[in-house]
Amino acid sequence: MIESNEQYLQALGQNAKQASYALANLTGTQKQALLSAIAANLTARSQDILAANSKDVAAARKNGLNEAMIDRLLLDESRLKGVISDIDNVISLADPVGTELESKLLDNGLRLSRRRVPLGVIGVIYEARPNVTVDIAVLALKTGNAVILRGGKETLQSNLALSEAIRSAVVEQGLDADCVQLIKSPDRALVSGLLKLDQFVDMIVPRGGQNLQRLCAEQATIPVILGGIGICHLYADKDADIAKSIDVIANAKVQRPTVCNALDTVLVHESLSDALLPKLFSTLSAQGVSFYGCEKTKAIADKLGVSISLATDETFGQEWLSLTLGIKLVSDIDAAIKHIRTYSSGHSEGILTDNIHASAHFINHVDSAAVYVNASTRFTDGGQFGLGAEVAVSTQKLHARGPMGLEALTTYKWIGVGDYTVRG
Amino acid sequence: MIESNEQYLQALGQNAKQASYALANLTGTQKQALLSAIAANLTARSQDILAANSKDVAAARKNGLNEAMIDRLLLDESRLKGVISDIDNVISLADPVGTELESKLLDNGLRLSRRRVPLGVIGVIYEARPNVTVDIAVLALKTGNAVILRGGKETLQSNLALSEAIRSAVVEQGLDADCVQLIKSPDRALVSGLLKLDQFVDMIVPRGGQNLQRLCAEQATIPVILGGIGICHLYADKDADIAKSIDVIANAKVQRPTVCNALDTVLVHESLSDALLPKLFSTLSAQGVSFYGCEKTKAIADKLGVSISLATDETFGQEWLSLTLGIKLVSDIDAAIKHIRTYSSGHSEGILTDNIHASAHFINHVDSAAVYVNASTRFTDGGQFGLGAEVAVSTQKLHARGPMGLEALTTYKWIGVGDYTVRG
Repeated sequence: MIESNEQYLQALGQNAKQASYALANLTGTQKQALLSAIAANLTARSQDILAANSKDVAAARKNGLNEAMIDRLLLDESRLKGVISDIDNVISLADPVGTELESKLLDNGLRLSRRRVPLGVIGVIYEARPNVTVDIAVLALKTGNAVILRGGKETLQSNLALSEAIRSAVVEQGLDADCVQLIKSPDRALVSGLLKLDQFVDMIVPRGGQNLQRLCAEQATIPVILGGIGICHLYADKDADIAKSIDVIANAKVQRPTVCNALDTVLVHESLSDALLPKLFSTLSAQGVSFYGCEKTKAIADKLGVSISLATDETFGQEWLSLTLGIKLVSDIDAAIKHIRTYSSGHSEGILTDNIHASAHFINHVDSAAVYVNASTRFTDGGQFGLGAEVAVSTQKLHARGPMGLEALTTYKWIGVGDYTVRG
Repeated sequence: MIESNEQYLQALGQNAKQASYALANLTGTQKQALLSAIAANLTARSQDILAANSKDVAAARKNGLNEAMIDRLLLDESRLKGVISDIDNVISLADPVGTELESKLLDNGLRLSRRRVPLGVIGVIYEARPNVTVDIAVLALKTGNAVILRGGKETLQSNLALSEAIRSAVVEQGLDADCVQLIKSPDRALVSGLLKLDQFVDMIVPRGGQNLQRLCAEQATIPVILGGIGICHLYADKDADIAKSIDVIANAKVQRPTVCNALDTVLVHESLSDALLPKLFSTLSAQGVSFYGCEKTKAIADKLGVSISLATDETFGQEWLSLTLGIKLVSDIDAAIKHIRTYSSGHSEGILTDNIHASAHFINHVDSAAVYVNASTRFTDGGQFGLGAEVAVSTQKLHARGPMGLEALTTYKWIGVGDYTVRG
């Protein structure tokens, strides 16, 4: 890394840590006022923000980005209003900071308690979605954390306008502007550098695809929350209700195919193949789904005159994020579980069955963040789970698993109060 | 890494993961029986274990290890009995696995719960302390986890004998021997390789010094629990009771100076310097303590004819692990807090005061795993905190902070039960 980058990152980290100290001791009401001031400032500066976003959109078109990507980075008046009104939801959530998690009087004379406190400084790396800038800043501040933001370079102008509006609201409330800092240079070395700022940054949340997750796992010296990659499965058990199962499979695949909790592979008990597969093909084909099937599935499809591709190890290991579905016939529930253990990313899996034994067996033996019985994988989501907000969906097992709400942005400290008490 | 290492590690990881599936579904009683069988087997094989340990001790002497290190790796009949009887304590602890952390009926129709489950596979890297082999294996199995052990090469013979005794008890209980695996080769490339086995290993716990912690932070692609490094502070406030404060300082420094929760630096309010420092020098000198003081402290010591060294940035940033104490005079509580923020490793800090405002201020503004009022830093310990067992002392903020008990070896999964429920 060139020296100026190194110095820039050190200052970034130091400023964030310094700013975090005052944040950690705000009351819930003070943080509500801070978030209200941010919402008001974003509203007041809407025209500037939309103008900055127009520059990003124009540059994106000039650089030949596809329409789907441009749609993702586009802010218009109504979208920006939506982003701002989401702040009100966060304001209304309970503040987890300051709660006492436990308290006990120990035999050694200490009054010991565990108090929930902010993590300190959070680093978030994300793609070209300007709404995330506001979203993450607000969630971090709500939990008393300073935040360092690194958004996609395609939305730099939008992010600058948004983060400046947030920072000026922060200052207005008597706090250090560096509670929220945006990395402005598109230099990718800054991402690698950020991942090693363990002296100042307490947690990294990468919100992006496989490559970003991998980069963070490999380069970070700071604890990272990996997640957001969902290779999700539904297993139609021999005792599944076929018509209802097809509804759930269709919902999991089609309702919003581009997100991480969308279905990727359906595993079908062999005894259901004749009854389920024809209906599955016809229902999902009509909704635009194409299929990769195992050999047996493909043979059945061929007989039915349905054109499907042959699945491979590689296709079963793929997160589709599109109207594509893998299908595999399995001899029993344990074969389904084995397939899941091999190919799942640990996000969301479900069983479709009327059999109480199969249901319990599946729950006990499938180890993913979310395990469902007779429900769509699409439910794995902070909003759906009633968390009020979603920082990310973790697919690792430490600290937070599955949808992460406000508590995942906190830790605790042990407080021991004695009377000049010594250890014997 | 050479190919055979790569293959060895892949097999190690795969075997551990496979073994973990059955472990995850044992009942509490089954795990108690497993631990009892291990204790019985260790007792039955005591002579073999002690013989193996004698080989390690002989080799250590031959290689010129100092007596302190040899003492650490030595097992005799009474120590081994102690290690085995500690298993009974773990047997008697409540099994955290299977608990439901919360359960609610959501508006979308899902019955959602969070169930505590084992992490899966834990990797532990530790120094030449054979008791850790038993300790960690037992804690991992108690919580339904498979474990990969990598102990110091100086205790390889002891660890082989211990782990084989454990493995044969595991098999006796109808489980896969690979629930517990020991890395037998001293090749250090295997440590680096273990740190990257993220496909199979869910958590790494390094139990060792600064260099090992750093290696793990830098090389691991698996979540790591850093900890066990304690640069600990006590601040004697202007309203401290001087005689009682000296008792606490002496306890924190002298009671067991070689461990992470021992005191490293005492910060003294300037107004106390004349009253406190002479007594501190005389009391602690008599107990063999030597001092590094700030300039003002050194000037006072010089006047008193007490010989002390001059503290530097470097000495204030050092974990002493010996009868050495840093001393700094500070102008007020905020200067003390600033010093702690600069030099602390986030382990344990305390204030000594009779002032209720100073106490609250210190608790609120010092962000370490354990923060004390009028108590020795020596209390930061799983046993003292009533956790029943201690896996490690975490100085990071994610997942577990401070002394880690059994719960830190678990995670949770979300379980959603519907009635063929789809997302609208």
